[in-house]
Formats: sequence, structure tokens, C-alpha cells
Amino acid sequence: MRFEVLILGSSSATPIYGRHPTAQLINVNEQLYLVDCGEGTQVQLIKYGIKSNRIKHIFISHLHGDHYLGLIGLLSSMHLVGRKEEVHVYGPAALEEIINIHFLHSQTVLRYPLYVHATQDESAEMIFENEHLQVSSFPLDHRIVCTGFRFDEKKRLPTIDRAKTEALGVPTAYLPLIKRGHDYTAPDGTVHRWQNLTLDPPVPRSYAYCSDTVMTPSYLPYIRKVDLLYHEATFLHNMLDRARDTYHTTALQAGEIAVEVQAKKLLIGHYSARYKDLKPLLEESKTVFEATQLALEGSWYSV
Amino acid sequence: MRFEVLILGSSSATPIYGRHPTAQLINVNEQLYLVDCGEGTQVQLIKYGIKSNRIKHIFISHLHGDHYLGLIGLLSSMHLVGRKEEVHVYGPAALEEIINIHFLHSQTVLRYPLYVHATQDESAEMIFENEHLQVSSFPLDHRIVCTGFRFDEKKRLPTIDRAKTEALGVPTAYLPLIKRGHDYTAPDGTVHRWQNLTLDPPVPRSYAYCSDTVMTPSYLPYIRKVDLLYHEATFLHNMLDRARDTYHTTALQAGEIAVEVQAKKLLIGHYSARYKDLKPLLEESKTVFEATQLALEGSWYSV
Repeated sequence: MRFEVLILGSSSATPIYGRHPTAQLINVNEQLYLVDCGEGTQVQLIKYGIKSNRIKHIFISHLHGDHYLGLIGLLSSMHLVGRKEEVHVYGPAALEEIINIHFLHSQTVLRYPLYVHATQDESAEMIFENEHLQVSSFPLDHRIVCTGFRFDEKKRLPTIDRAKTEALGVPTAYLPLIKRGHDYTAPDGTVHRWQNLTLDPPVPRSYAYCSDTVMTPSYLPYIRKVDLLYHEATFLHNMLDRARDTYHTTALQAGEIAVEVQAKKLLIGHYSARYKDLKPLLEESKTVFEATQLALEGSWYSV
Repeated sequence: MRFEVLILGSSSATPIYGRHPTAQLINVNEQLYLVDCGEGTQVQLIKYGIKSNRIKHIFISHLHGDHYLGLIGLLSSMHLVGRKEEVHVYGPAALEEIINIHFLHSQTVLRYPLYVHATQDESAEMIFENEHLQVSSFPLDHRIVCTGFRFDEKKRLPTIDRAKTEALGVPTAYLPLIKRGHDYTAPDGTVHRWQNLTLDPPVPRSYAYCSDTVMTPSYLPYIRKVDLLYHEATFLHNMLDRARDTYHTTALQAGEIAVEVQAKKLLIGHYSARYKDLKPLLEESKTVFEATQLALEGSWYSV
């Protein structure tokens, strides 16, 4: 099952050097989820060949412009191309007011149902789930109300061990029952335990997204042992004071967090406009956590 | 004196084929004015090497997203790079509410003074002037409140005819008076009329901007005899019904308007996403008005 992240924007607030404000597309089993939506996201989607009408759920971490100013334009374009399917937006409570005031003054009545769900930053909360996936928000520590998001694959049913079921001549109709934990009784009365007829399913994978935050222990419990951790790394560690003042993180801290929470891989982004060359950020994080990668626009990262 | 228009965005609402929503930069004597500010305008400014901090006056025609959704990001970035100089925004009354609600929820206190001036669509009105220039808004006929803008160079003082003043030995201190219409009395008592000592100044030039409008006679008086007319031409004339339904103009109509108002040159833009190739739009307008040009992003047009 596919579980990948496409970087649409990797810049912090000031877009420069061809880098755009934050946005990511998550593909889970060919369902597309958008996480944050900085100005220009709809153009980035076009650039990377993604049909925005395939996106049904949009998660906004906080209301700094570089994380959501592309949302109204994207929702408008979905309307203009005749979308009928509903869209769900998850974000801080005031987001609904901002969306409404725009469509009020532009006198737009959307042709599709739009549901805006308020997130909160008091505690972690499951905000979306379907057959394959569960998405939770959790509090970060930024200058304004801000949440991260964690995408967890659901545990899948075991896989049928075809070699065994075929050898035993198990009728196909029984297979879904066996997957769900029913034993199989053969015509001769022998009971075959379902555990012996199945293989373990793949271990569920998880992705955590920490958009903008100062480094604190408070949110680490929510991102423990994820397969891929995206963490902002706005500054190099020689700017730690500035990072703290602006509620941001350094590349070294991002690496330390990945170590602390036992993430398998780390993706850093949200680069300050002062860094044209990103290699020093990567190298700094790698000094403590080798499996670090730079979030680069247009690149897909496997979870 | 420089008087030129740079196209930053040429697309109608749906950005596609590398075309961006509407925005234009006007350079009048090295003062920069922004007219409309679709999503991504700040990135377009960077792309074309324009320092946004040189912009002090921003004119917004109406509150459809493709004409203003880049404004908040631009104002935010000006703040982030430490701008101190004031910014003036002119647009429909509700624009101030939209700006305020964003900065309220992002908890941003701008470091520079921002003045938002409400325009109205009842009548033409002078909304800005300085030594060289006067800018007026005028009502267009669109689905929501919408104004065009007209940029008029002010009439300049006559130029001193140096050959004559030097032959007569007119002291330099008298020259500014002569320019302002004072006659010169020579030491022998001869009166030299100022008209004989000066040359006509260049004829003032004018630029009119018609962002989004259905073709009606109502606004034609405001754009008479401009040197350069920018007029939207969203559709080809075979889509006239659609143009009327959506309060837009066809390329043929844009040409007809240029003829009717005796414009010297016409620039068409705001192309529908259905036209990948823009040549048919150009050719259609040229059938009635030869001096038509396509608004192309990154190109400067002399007024």
C-alpha cells in the first residue's frame, strides 16, 4: 500500500530561491491528503501533475499566512472547475470565519459541500479515520495556536498463506473468514487454526508532521516511534536564541527530537530565507541523526 | 520620464499553463505601483527582480480571489523583512475587514503603517496624486463591486529653450520663473514673453486598467483617449453568451472598446483557462483594432 509524502512548499514565511511556503501532499493508498496550504499551493499542485480534485481532506496546522494563504484560492478553483464532491478542512476554529468572509465578499456559493472542522491545541485528538488510515492532531508550541498531525495506517488483516490453503483445498469463500480470525474445519473434521493459515500483515506505518514549533518535551509523546517524522528546522543551531524567540526549531534540535522519539527517518524543512544553500542544515541534523533528509519541493518521500 | 507596465499575472481565475492570476506593476518615473495582487504575486515580483519594498501604493479592483489573494502574503512579507515605510492599499470597503481578520488571527502587529482606503463604484474619483501622477478609480460592471483605475501623468511645465535664453544671456535664477509663466525683462527694458523662451512639454500620457467587466457604455467616458488601455478579454467572441453571463468581455469587444474610446494602444489579458494558445484572442481583437498586444507575464509595456 502506497504511503508517501510529496513536498509542495519547503520555505518559511518569506518565499525565496524558488522555494514556496509550506504545503505537503500525503498519498495513502491513492487517497490524497493535503497538509498545510501556503500561498501558491494550487500552482505547485499543477506543476507536479496532481489533480486537486483528488484531494478531499485538508489539514491546516495554524493561521500564520505561510501555512494557509493558498487555501481560499484552492477552494475557489475547485468550485470553478465544477467540483461536486465534498471537501473537509481541519484547522483552528477561526479558519471557518476567514473562509466565510472571503466567500461572502466574493459572493461565491460553492457548488460542493465544504465542511470546516475546528481543531484544538489542548490535547491530542483523532480527527479523521477511514478503512486504512487514522489522522490525529496534537498540540505544538508556537506563537499562536498550532497543531501537528499524525497519520497512522490502521492495522491490516493478516494475509492468507496461499500455499497452505491451496494444499488443504480450503474453498475460496472461507478465506475472508479466516483472515478475520475464524478457524477452518476441514471436511474430515480436522480443525486448522487461522493463525496457521495466515501470514502477519505488514506492520502499520506512521507519519508525523510538526509544522512550526519551539522544541519542548510536551509534544514528543505524540510523535513516538513514527516511521517518518517531518519536523521544521528553520534555523541552524548558531541561531538558537532567534529560534526560541520566534518559536521555531534548529536543525540540530530536529535531529535530537528524532533520536529522542526513536523515529526511523527524519525530514526537515521550513527553511529560513537566509539559507540559500541547505546542506549545512542537513549536515547539522545528521551529526545526531543520520537518517535525515532535506524536504525538497517536487520530491516524494516514502513513509 | 518612464511610464511602463509589467505584467505579473495574465490568467483569469484558474491559474494554468504557467499563467498566474491578475497583477500588474506600474512604473511611473521610478515609483512603483501595484494594480491587483492575485495569489503568488510576491513570488512573481521576486521572479522578475522587483523589490517589493519599492511598492508603496497598491490598488485592488475587486474582491474576487484571483485579484487580491496575494495581498495578505505580500503585506506579511513586507513586515517580515523589516519594512518601516508606510503602505497604502486602495480597494472595496470590505478589504480592510479581510486584512484585519487575517492579522488578528495570525497575531501580527505590522511594523509599518498600513492605510487601507475604501474605493466606491458609484462614480469616478481621484484617489491618489503626487507631483507626477494622478490615479482615479471608476466603476466597472462586474458581478460584484468592481472598479477600474486610470493613471494620468500630470501636465509638466514647459521646457526652457536653452538656445534662446543663452543667446539673450538670461540669468539662471530667472529660468524657473519663466517655466512658470513669467515674462523676462532684459536690462535694456525689452520684454520677452515666456512663451517665446520655452518649448512645449511632452504631452501627458495615460493608462487605464479594466480588470473584470461586461462590455457596457457606462465606463467608456472614463477611459477616453488613453495612450494605453488594458482591458480584460477573457473569452473569444464565439463565447459571447458566456462572457455576458459571467460579466466578462470578449477579445473582439475589447478591440471595439479601444476603437470607441480612441485609445492609442490596447493590451488584452485575463485569459480563460480554456485557451492554451492565445493567438486567436490577439487576432480577434486585431480585426477591429490593429494596435493590440497580448499581456504576457514578465513583459514590460510602454504607455
